[in-house]
Amino acid sequence: MYRSPTALKTKLALIASTLLAPVSSVFASDGVVLKSNDLVGISFWFISMALVASTVFFFMESLRMAGKWRTSVVASGLVTLVAAVHYFYMRDVWVATGSTPTVYRYIDWIITVPLLMAEFYLILSAITKVPGGVFWRLMIGTIAMLVFGFAGEAGLLNVTVAFILSMLGWIYIIYEVFAGEASKISASKATPGVQSAFKTMRLIVTFGWAIYPIGYVLGYLVGNDPTASANSLNLIYNLADVVNKIGFGLIIWAVASRETEASTGK
Amino acid sequence: MYRSPTALKTKLALIASTLLAPVSSVFASDGVVLKSNDLVGISFWFISMALVASTVFFFMESLRMAGKWRTSVVASGLVTLVAAVHYFYMRDVWVATGSTPTVYRYIDWIITVPLLMAEFYLILSAITKVPGGVFWRLMIGTIAMLVFGFAGEAGLLNVTVAFILSMLGWIYIIYEVFAGEASKISASKATPGVQSAFKTMRLIVTFGWAIYPIGYVLGYLVGNDPTASANSLNLIYNLADVVNKIGFGLIIWAVASRETEASTGK
Amino acid sequence: MYRSPTALKTKLALIASTLLAPVSSVFASDGVVLKSNDLVGISFWFISMALVASTVFFFMESLRMAGKWRTSVVASGLVTLVAAVHYFYMRDVWVATGSTPTVYRYIDWIITVPLLMAEFYLILSAITKVPGGVFWRLMIGTIAMLVFGFAGEAGLLNVTVAFILSMLGWIYIIYEVFAGEASKISASKATPGVQSAFKTMRLIVTFGWAIYPIGYVLGYLVGNDPTASANSLNLIYNLADVVNKIGFGLIIWAVASRETEASTGK
Amino acid sequence: MYRSPTALKTKLALIASTLLAPVSSVFASDGVVLKSNDLVGISFWFISMALVASTVFFFMESLRMAGKWRTSVVASGLVTLVAAVHYFYMRDVWVATGSTPTVYRYIDWIITVPLLMAEFYLILSAITKVPGGVFWRLMIGTIAMLVFGFAGEAGLLNVTVAFILSMLGWIYIIYEVFAGEASKISASKATPGVQSAFKTMRLIVTFGWAIYPIGYVLGYLVGNDPTASANSLNLIYNLADVVNKIGFGLIIWAVASRETEASTGK
Amino acid sequence: MYRSPTALKTKLALIASTLLAPVSSVFASDGVVLKSNDLVGISFWFISMALVASTVFFFMESLRMAGKWRTSVVASGLVTLVAAVHYFYMRDVWVATGSTPTVYRYIDWIITVPLLMAEFYLILSAITKVPGGVFWRLMIGTIAMLVFGFAGEAGLLNVTVAFILSMLGWIYIIYEVFAGEASKISASKATPGVQSAFKTMRLIVTFGWAIYPIGYVLGYLVGNDPTASANSLNLIYNLADVVNKIGFGLIIWAVASRETEASTGK
Repeated sequence: MYRSPTALKTKLALIASTLLAPVSSVFASDGVVLKSNDLVGISFWFISMALVASTVFFFMESLRMAGKWRTSVVASGLVTLVAAVHYFYMRDVWVATGSTPTVYRYIDWIITVPLLMAEFYLILSAITKVPGGVFWRLMIGTIAMLVFGFAGEAGLLNVTVAFILSMLGWIYIIYEVFAGEASKISASKATPGVQSAFKTMRLIVTFGWAIYPIGYVLGYLVGNDPTASANSLNLIYNLADVVNKIGFGLIIWAVASRETEASTGK
Repeated sequence: MYRSPTALKTKLALIASTLLAPVSSVFASDGVVLKSNDLVGISFWFISMALVASTVFFFMESLRMAGKWRTSVVASGLVTLVAAVHYFYMRDVWVATGSTPTVYRYIDWIITVPLLMAEFYLILSAITKVPGGVFWRLMIGTIAMLVFGFAGEAGLLNVTVAFILSMLGWIYIIYEVFAGEASKISASKATPGVQSAFKTMRLIVTFGWAIYPIGYVLGYLVGNDPTASANSLNLIYNLADVVNKIGFGLIIWAVASRETEASTGK
Repeated sequence: MYRSPTALKTKLALIASTLLAPVSSVFASDGVVLKSNDLVGISFWFISMALVASTVFFFMESLRMAGKWRTSVVASGLVTLVAAVHYFYMRDVWVATGSTPTVYRYIDWIITVPLLMAEFYLILSAITKVPGGVFWRLMIGTIAMLVFGFAGEAGLLNVTVAFILSMLGWIYIIYEVFAGEASKISASKATPGVQSAFKTMRLIVTFGWAIYPIGYVLGYLVGNDPTASANSLNLIYNLADVVNKIGFGLIIWAVASRETEASTGK
Repeated sequence: MYRSPTALKTKLALIASTLLAPVSSVFASDGVVLKSNDLVGISFWFISMALVASTVFFFMESLRMAGKWRTSVVASGLVTLVAAVHYFYMRDVWVATGSTPTVYRYIDWIITVPLLMAEFYLILSAITKVPGGVFWRLMIGTIAMLVFGFAGEAGLLNVTVAFILSMLGWIYIIYEVFAGEASKISASKATPGVQSAFKTMRLIVTFGWAIYPIGYVLGYLVGNDPTASANSLNLIYNLADVVNKIGFGLIIWAVASRETEASTGK
Repeated sequence: MYRSPTALKTKLALIASTLLAPVSSVFASDGVVLKSNDLVGISFWFISMALVASTVFFFMESLRMAGKWRTSVVASGLVTLVAAVHYFYMRDVWVATGSTPTVYRYIDWIITVPLLMAEFYLILSAITKVPGGVFWRLMIGTIAMLVFGFAGEAGLLNVTVAFILSMLGWIYIIYEVFAGEASKISASKATPGVQSAFKTMRLIVTFGWAIYPIGYVLGYLVGNDPTASANSLNLIYNLADVVNKIGFGLIIWAVASRETEASTGK
């Protein structure tokens, strides 16, 4: 299986450096510790640890939520859990190769983005009966957005065509939460607290998520030098995920906490 | 124990590459990262992470379920837990050898499939008294299906004979849930929600599980080139398990959630 | 500390192969994956994973049990937890050396067997006041059985003498649960469900545990070739532990579940 | 990727020694075990283990707290959890390089210090309605303190200017909790127990936190030999964190416990 | 950092053997498995696993305890958790160097012994109001005992002087629980169950803890050959900790269980 000792050594070095990357990111290639001005590295550290803390927070806090509100907070914890695992891997790859393969972000998104969209359905379901169609339309828009985006990156589709189709999926989601049935249920049946959370969440989906197609355009359509912009792109993605994953989850936690107290008098 | 340094190195390389495979799958044999168009590798990543998230979800959510419904949801979590561990191992072997040894899928099945069949019994038991015979008949059919299937693969029995005996086990299970005592109890005593879940679950057992004997036929009876079809077979198996393990568990979670709210008014 | 590179390499190889054995058991000595007909290896895999799943099951389910029944189910989870850890080690040693050193089974037994005996006391205590003497007599018999058995294996006592003394400990336990105070309390004060569990548990202690002295006799007294029978002995031990540890725990779980529902109306 | 075997070896050695540092700190550079008079090493061991124990304690205890008090105790556990992870890394770096890179303490602080400040808001929110402005003013002061402090260390700002701006953030926090709205809410609406906790917490923020700017001054402004003082500085920081993180958390746990008992009669 | 390959190899070997010691303790220096008559090694295995099982038991069981009794049982779990981690490290060092450096036992003691003393305060607080002075006097005596003991070992104080001062701390604790305020509160206000537990706990502090100064005298004052007695001393310490940590915790668990049932009728 391993033809030459050299190949083996190279393989082992690659494996070891990847496995140990959470640690070795401390040591730059010249063996010195993480520099205080390596902002990308620090942002990877920060988001990884913040995701771990958020995950524990959401799971622990879910235990005091009433009924279906608990499910919403557990889902917030699943988003940060899956993201935390992928961020540890991405930090590894970033250290070993100097760039983050977008494939990891896609595997993360294929799990976390549907969970985030499901939250719109879950918080409405916690207070009223919501038709299943709302859930499935949000899912279809989300999956279209992800699958066409990925198809463009993977070269299975023309990148411009893929980009447009992916954007249509995103626009469909935005339509649903701003003017579709989900929006109407929120406006007519939700408590003021849930309505407020619903509004903030759809702002995040609109403006917070805009960071990802912008990155896609910069990386694939405009034709920038990807090496040069990799650092700043990673920094922006990492900080965007603080809002889009942790902040999004905290909004749900806050409304779940408020509604639980209102319904149980505790 | 280790006669020569070469043997030792080979052994260590094999061990290391296997242990580190969850990481090294990022690196193809030529040292580049997971390609965006390696759909089999991505499907292994996706199912592994989705199983981890499902396991956490089922265990966290089980805590808010009433009485025996909790047991059903815990059992769903056990299925995804055991599958998650085996999928991490299978991804390892897939990377190290380029094919997934079916022995891992069998060890997974020998634990998860009886758990899945037990769910039919558990959800009926949560609402009414169910004779133990229903449980044991489902178990016997399941174990026959698995043991004969394995005996065929392991060469302990003629593959065609083993296939037929295994199919009989499966058909017996299908009979029990469509026309046997389990089916009758569901039809006569279950709430509409439980009946609906029962019906969806037996459709999964019929059509979702059909993927496994089809794989068996392609691999052992028809005589296809196994190397050529290994990739597509793994892709199909991985996606099938999303339905057969995670989807199956979500049906149980949904009915447990609905029935818990109905019975406790929460 | 390490005089020569060779000694070091040998040491490291031993350590590495042991540590990595859960993985490397996949690879036989010639570097191929676990063969589908290596039933001993498959049984080690199966029991390890089944113990992990059982442990999670007992701990999760304990949370819905009332009062002292919870303690019984937690104790079942401790038995499978301790056994799971030791089985992972034993699988390691089995791979590295081709035989399972009985010392591991003894360390496992010295913790799990008293826990199993304590279950007789715990399930009776959950329904009535039980004199502490019952607990201590069961412990004394258990510890005598284990200590003399171990003394024989370790060469601290003549094997035949040790065997007889160890058997006396076992017979004393069997006497206590069939005709002693524990048995009388069960017959006079326990509910039908507890009585039934008590009876099944003592059958396991009688017939399920008989597998261990039979192994002792075959290995130490009869003088069989230990290498030849190691494989079949391990296979028998592994399958026996499915009944003696997981099955035993499931009986306690079932009665705890039934009694909890009876007492709380849930 | 790895041009020479020497570079590879050096890299691997660095990685290995870092990864294994929790263990290897036992062995000084000459291969002997941790000396009984290496107080810095012992303090790293002690604080790491004490943080682990505190984290488990806060999470377990949070489960018996009523309503919002639970959130306060969970937040205490998050502080010690994040600190524990970073302390394990810092111990590693301390062993590998003989000094603790302040960058780790900053990543720790950017997560834990806002959490500590949020506790002032959380304990007041547990008993009365608190304007969101209190929360945001505490956050702004905290983040100014951290960001300017870091900018000075990283050379992004003149160290003296950065120091002054950072101090202003700290003074603003102290003003808020001693004379601002938070202080007034505590004085007018809090129970005696909460008032007492509030007072002790602000003393810790004033005097306990003073240790960090003192270290900053010694390290960056006064111009001491950093190598000579690194040991004593680490010892002081480690012991300060026992008070500032574990002690701070215990105050919140104590008041949460008292108020829970008062409100539930348990 | 690593001047020569030899130094690197030695370092790595030391690190690896330490990290892997939980496993490698199976293999004696000549590469054979743990011998059945190596009682010290077996006692290290046994106490490590027993501490893990105890920790899980105390945490799981704490969840069914009422109010402050839960805190007492959680504290028992913290004692065994911290001890378990240190025992895994000590087993490592014992394997790598053939002796257990007392520094580990001291780091363990500095966390676990105050927790054990706090239990006297916690079980009294669970049933009545106890002045804070009781807590602080127990802490002061405990810390004096530990700090002076350590100062003697570390050569910071004359060993005889340190021994006497340490003994005074211990005697002060014993006075407090036999004749001081803690004792009086127990005698006048505690239920019979708590009084009985209190009495057993102080017997453990008196006689069970006597093992540690005896070891100190043998090792430092009498002048025995430390190498010769290291084995027996470790065996005695390991078995003593079964009583002083696990047994002590079980007494608290038993009284917490009894009092919880008495107060809640469950």
